[in-house]
Amino acid sequence: MKKEITKASIQLFEQKGFSQTSIQDIVESLNVTKGTFYYYFTSKEQLLMDIHNQYIDNLLTQQKKIIDNSSFTNREKIKKIIALLIRDIRDEKSSGKVFFREIVHLNSENVGTIKEKRNRFRINIEDIVRKGIDNKEFKTNLRPDMVAFGILGVTNYSYNWYNPEGEVTPEELTNIFSVIVLEGLLDE
Amino acid sequence: MKKEITKASIQLFEQKGFSQTSIQDIVESLNVTKGTFYYYFTSKEQLLMDIHNQYIDNLLTQQKKIIDNSSFTNREKIKKIIALLIRDIRDEKSSGKVFFREIVHLNSENVGTIKEKRNRFRINIEDIVRKGIDNKEFKTNLRPDMVAFGILGVTNYSYNWYNPEGEVTPEELTNIFSVIVLEGLLDE
Repeated sequence: MKKEITKASIQLFEQKGFSQTSIQDIVESLNVTKGTFYYYFTSKEQLLMDIHNQYIDNLLTQQKKIIDNSSFTNREKIKKIIALLIRDIRDEKSSGKVFFREIVHLNSENVGTIKEKRNRFRINIEDIVRKGIDNKEFKTNLRPDMVAFGILGVTNYSYNWYNPEGEVTPEELTNIFSVIVLEGLLDE
Repeated sequence: MKKEITKASIQLFEQKGFSQTSIQDIVESLNVTKGTFYYYFTSKEQLLMDIHNQYIDNLLTQQKKIIDNSSFTNREKIKKIIALLIRDIRDEKSSGKVFFREIVHLNSENVGTIKEKRNRFRINIEDIVRKGIDNKEFKTNLRPDMVAFGILGVTNYSYNWYNPEGEVTPEELTNIFSVIVLEGLLDE
């Protein structure tokens, strides 16, 4: 039931916004009582924090699998992380919207926890870039921190415009973005 | 005086938000009367639309100068547009914030006008990419529309994290981002 409550809440938060959604709205959408809600969550804020944690923990877990796979080159790791983030727009669009938009409704301690996890995701990309520079896969004259921000710019901006149900599939978009980031536009 | 009112309003809108700033706040910050305000603007909304128009018109004008200069290759045009957008974060940070954040306070007709201009900026980049593909400067297997979104992702995301007063200058950041977009990370 905890999963059902979380899922229904993500839909309601996406449609109506966190502030405009009451616990009453959530339990009514599932035909359960408020008692059921409070059996699993102490408050609407705790539920929102749960949603934030699940969203970023899931991304970090998948990122870790990519990083820890020693059969991948650093180049392959960058491409797989781009694929992970673009696929996520298709698979977790509602959670992603709630994650980016409703973080203002977390208390400052919780915001700190979530931002620290977001930073970890970015610094993990920076580490891959640094290793790729060290082993001469990547160009040596680039700052890994700025490169990581550049890669996240390409993928995160897609949340604003990309429609995964449109004519460009997540796989095609991943390929285009990987070519830009890894090989560049120039035909040489 | 119109310029002074606009400038003071951008600062106030950035600090307090559009909704929280009254015309009284604006005129008090300049030691002028409300009559002076209404001599130049019919309403706070019209002033906000003026700010939006100036911001995007300025970017479109500078972009046009780059596009119309036939001595530039398409590669140079892409780099110069990246430079334009990164420099803009330094020079127009307050206007940029107001532009991205307060567009919700424009009426739907005005939103349409501004979105059309934003789209034009993006489609101009798409056109450069298409020309670069046609004349074999750029790789031929990439969709120009997706590439344009990728480039704008790199630059627009910088508004969220880049501090132009920090250790990386706008020129350095432009160079790093241009290398990524044009030549790619790979050392080959």
